[in-house]
Amino acid sequence: MNTFKIAIDVMGSDNGPEMLIRGAVKALENHEDLSIVLFGDEEIIHRTLEASECDVSRIEVVHASDVITNYDNPMEAIFRKTDASLVKALRALGEREDLVGLINAGSTGALLAGALRYVPAKVLKRPALAALLPAEQGGFTCLVDTGANIDCNAYQLVDFAHMGSDFMKEFYNIKAPRIGLLSNGTEETKGNKLVKETHALLKQETDLNFIGNIEGNRALSGDCDVLVADGFAGNQILKSSEGIARRIITDIVKYAKKTNNPEIMKLVGHLMGIYDFSALGGGIVLGAGKPIIKARGSANADAITNTSAMLLNMVKNQDLFYGKDFR
Amino acid sequence: MNTFKIAIDVMGSDNGPEMLIRGAVKALENHEDLSIVLFGDEEIIHRTLEASECDVSRIEVVHASDVITNYDNPMEAIFRKTDASLVKALRALGEREDLVGLINAGSTGALLAGALRYVPAKVLKRPALAALLPAEQGGFTCLVDTGANIDCNAYQLVDFAHMGSDFMKEFYNIKAPRIGLLSNGTEETKGNKLVKETHALLKQETDLNFIGNIEGNRALSGDCDVLVADGFAGNQILKSSEGIARRIITDIVKYAKKTNNPEIMKLVGHLMGIYDFSALGGGIVLGAGKPIIKARGSANADAITNTSAMLLNMVKNQDLFYGKDFR
Repeated sequence: MNTFKIAIDVMGSDNGPEMLIRGAVKALENHEDLSIVLFGDEEIIHRTLEASECDVSRIEVVHASDVITNYDNPMEAIFRKTDASLVKALRALGEREDLVGLINAGSTGALLAGALRYVPAKVLKRPALAALLPAEQGGFTCLVDTGANIDCNAYQLVDFAHMGSDFMKEFYNIKAPRIGLLSNGTEETKGNKLVKETHALLKQETDLNFIGNIEGNRALSGDCDVLVADGFAGNQILKSSEGIARRIITDIVKYAKKTNNPEIMKLVGHLMGIYDFSALGGGIVLGAGKPIIKARGSANADAITNTSAMLLNMVKNQDLFYGKDFR
Repeated sequence: MNTFKIAIDVMGSDNGPEMLIRGAVKALENHEDLSIVLFGDEEIIHRTLEASECDVSRIEVVHASDVITNYDNPMEAIFRKTDASLVKALRALGEREDLVGLINAGSTGALLAGALRYVPAKVLKRPALAALLPAEQGGFTCLVDTGANIDCNAYQLVDFAHMGSDFMKEFYNIKAPRIGLLSNGTEETKGNKLVKETHALLKQETDLNFIGNIEGNRALSGDCDVLVADGFAGNQILKSSEGIARRIITDIVKYAKKTNNPEIMKLVGHLMGIYDFSALGGGIVLGAGKPIIKARGSANADAITNTSAMLLNMVKNQDLFYGKDFR
């Protein structure tokens, strides 16, 4: 059987490497066409694998004696901590033909800097972080950037539009992805200075299907396939949507307990299936040569299993998406 | 009985003056200590009042032959369209002692420019637009600015903090309102250039209870009493929260219809009571000499009735809040 081999950097997350390793083991159980290379402290990895009593035939372990933490300067760490698990994993992803993708749950900044350094795309661009948000009419809206690039200029936002458009085109088979620009009003005259400048530039991009400004209340509506925002504003959309969804679901759970109505607990399950953003598995690094997913620092084992499934799904389409550029 | 007289500019909204007039009539029915001055086309006003067959003893009509629309340049319109209903209403609010507050559902820009021109506070500041968001632990968080000031500098954001703090202090009787700064991370080092500059300034404001950065997913948590943001970012928080809440509630309604479970429709009522932001009645103009509320352009009659109740509630507390400065 043709298997897909992905790299998982198990270090640097909030909950310790064991959580990521357990998530990886579960992913292997779920997908027989998956194999995984774990990067990190080999003692911890072997101990955790033994305790899980899993079949290790599809697991490879690469020892790394160092870790990049959130306290490190990302750029410095990528260049200096050459024995760190993340550097070893990224370098392997760039060099090894058999490795088709990577998951990390540590420093976002280091991941992005390292992706540019070790897994560059053919056309060099500053990587961006995208999120796939569940659109109201089904399908997904690709929000880019969600926090990798906080202070942006208009040309960067145009790059985000292209990266998002390419992604939705080739990964979701959308012929001419509709590009929306996040603003405080739909009219062309609305927006801050950055948005107005970007709007003018996007209108001139003949190879983009730019449909105009989108307001925050339509961010998840499905009105566009790619929603372009600077990393600060994009982060607000992502996090406030998450926050309010989590809060409403918590309210419903309380209501269900109070009324003791099992139907309402079923409803909670239904809503969690759509609005539990943490289950979506993490952010996608756009602008790298191979698929890379940033899981949350707080990711639990299930989140890593979900992220692995998402990455596997991506790499199965990689000839469509990444193949042309990278190989 | 001591009645409170408020001004309502019935012109310039999306749904026509009749909608606002009907909302005003309903508000009078609900509150016997309320009286209302309607500013606008007197023919339309009288015709609508007659059709409603209401008691007109607590209604005064001031005719205005002109209207400020969303297509007008706000600043120009305020200075040139002196016969417009909004200008007449604002001027009356500034001059007439018996008028204690104002509601408008037309051009936000013109309302803010006109408030500064005709209803200035003792300490002149560029007005901001605030929203009271339902906090998770009960009570409200005052988000300021929600879209009145799109391109801001750090000093403006510090002003927003003061205006919001004063409002929550005197209107909600909170002794030292906790001020949060919207950012993409809680750490002091997180934020765009504007947020980092503002953070440094807010730390030096000894008369503010600044508690640090707040992430978008905690915007409605109740972690702070005042959430400071530039108008672009604040607009995203407000609108994306509204958007996702509306969408989840719509989903639940569909689910209730499918499962035919009356308990779930009851749940919808419960959630609408908390998360139907349109029922909150609109934005509050901070930095004016008397209470002014901006209702939405799309406000229906019920929204105007709610907004009137909100304004009445505010003016009953006005000796606390506006009295000292203005009179």
